[in-house]
Amino acid sequence: MFEKLSILGAGLLGASVMQAAKKRGVAKKCVAWSRSAGTRELCANADFCDAVFDTPEAAVAGADCVVACVPVDKIVPLLADCATTISPTALVTDVGSTKAAICSDAKKLLPAGVGFVGSHPMAGSELNGFAHGNAELLQNRLCFVANDAEPRLIDLAQKFWQGLGMRTRLVDPAEHDAIVAHVSHLPHAVAAALSAALAQKPAEWRDCGAGGLRDTTRVSAGNPHVWQAILEENRAEIIPALSEFLAKFSELKSALERGDSEALLALLSAASNWRLPLSQN
Amino acid sequence: MFEKLSILGAGLLGASVMQAAKKRGVAKKCVAWSRSAGTRELCANADFCDAVFDTPEAAVAGADCVVACVPVDKIVPLLADCATTISPTALVTDVGSTKAAICSDAKKLLPAGVGFVGSHPMAGSELNGFAHGNAELLQNRLCFVANDAEPRLIDLAQKFWQGLGMRTRLVDPAEHDAIVAHVSHLPHAVAAALSAALAQKPAEWRDCGAGGLRDTTRVSAGNPHVWQAILEENRAEIIPALSEFLAKFSELKSALERGDSEALLALLSAASNWRLPLSQN
Repeated sequence: MFEKLSILGAGLLGASVMQAAKKRGVAKKCVAWSRSAGTRELCANADFCDAVFDTPEAAVAGADCVVACVPVDKIVPLLADCATTISPTALVTDVGSTKAAICSDAKKLLPAGVGFVGSHPMAGSELNGFAHGNAELLQNRLCFVANDAEPRLIDLAQKFWQGLGMRTRLVDPAEHDAIVAHVSHLPHAVAAALSAALAQKPAEWRDCGAGGLRDTTRVSAGNPHVWQAILEENRAEIIPALSEFLAKFSELKSALERGDSEALLALLSAASNWRLPLSQN
Repeated sequence: MFEKLSILGAGLLGASVMQAAKKRGVAKKCVAWSRSAGTRELCANADFCDAVFDTPEAAVAGADCVVACVPVDKIVPLLADCATTISPTALVTDVGSTKAAICSDAKKLLPAGVGFVGSHPMAGSELNGFAHGNAELLQNRLCFVANDAEPRLIDLAQKFWQGLGMRTRLVDPAEHDAIVAHVSHLPHAVAAALSAALAQKPAEWRDCGAGGLRDTTRVSAGNPHVWQAILEENRAEIIPALSEFLAKFSELKSALERGDSEALLALLSAASNWRLPLSQN
């Protein structure tokens, strides 16, 4: 499908994209840039990475597909830095967890010749970095593709992610940000507040939990810098989502405090009814 | 270890205890009672269940170990109903998620001849019922054993759960309730409020989430009646835990609202530092 796939930023997602691309024949050659010398060494030793470069400019030269796999606040500046080297026919996309600002900034800051389409593969792990990457991470997961680009590029971006084993969904960047504020960023905020609250209790309590504690808090182990950038970039959508959660949590707390079994049961039932289908498929 | 293990209530945990007991040779014979005719039929057809009875009295007759696997508010009344039939030398225990009220009520309501020791195996699933039971559910999990009983019985209870593959921890019933309010009941309340909040959004958003959404909300799929009883039984310990969470969540929300990156990063870092060891072992 592509002759040369260039990955800018070789963390969890960058490494997973390269592995899936090689495994599934989506790219003949995979090359990478990382700002970290340690990660560049891991790339040099990985059989799925054909070449690794010290600069983004060197990594994108001659690539027909470029994927920016850096934190949300670094994506557009990074692409702008190497924009003149990117082939004008290349598909340029990203993996950022927010889309409205990135897609709008890309329009403003990238030269007309750069064929940018925003993407967001909904796949991750609380364990970051190149070493945790794997092709399976992307399999059967959803990838959002922003609908505000040239039809030819949108089509190419969808085929690219589908080639890696993902389901795709075309979406307006603003709608994307509202959806992920609720299904990704809000759960992260809730999990982080829960872990931060439990961090105040005796340390040995952490080992008294079962699967419920592990699962409910899992994502909060993620890189705090990455998540700070995501929460701040999407704050306009996240703050209302936090308020919606707060209203429900306060409703539960108040029902328990005043001994209103009926209200408590109604809330627990609404939650169970909403969540059960995810356990059953 | 035991000649005849009697399980009162053949749901997820009752079925898992029987399977582990048979598989690991902890009991020669496993018998069960369930109030549901459908579950009694499942018991009758299961190779790990040697006999099933219509009444708890019939199920406990001649058993040297009795385990009450019913919701927290039903445990002591159920044992009281069949107390005169229970052998005075039998180990009588439970799987209830709260311990202070159950252990105290057991002392008041059960005749002196009933050798009750409170237990709480920290193992579960959001999918309830006999059909989801399996011996693996208990493996390497923690089981709390209440320390307010006869030393002979405490020792026997610990050996029983260890025989099923669990780690045990002796605990004061009140301390147990404070711990689980934080590591089990609070996470459930948080997950339930999150799912209930998301249930107000478009139904298709549920399918846009990745592993983070699944994991953070998983436990909220659990039986609402079971969890209503647990939250109400342990409300004295849970309400302060809910307040501790609320303070952290409000801190996060306020940091995001006023653009205080440093405070936001500090909270996300505290959460990540606390949670990371659970992902690394």
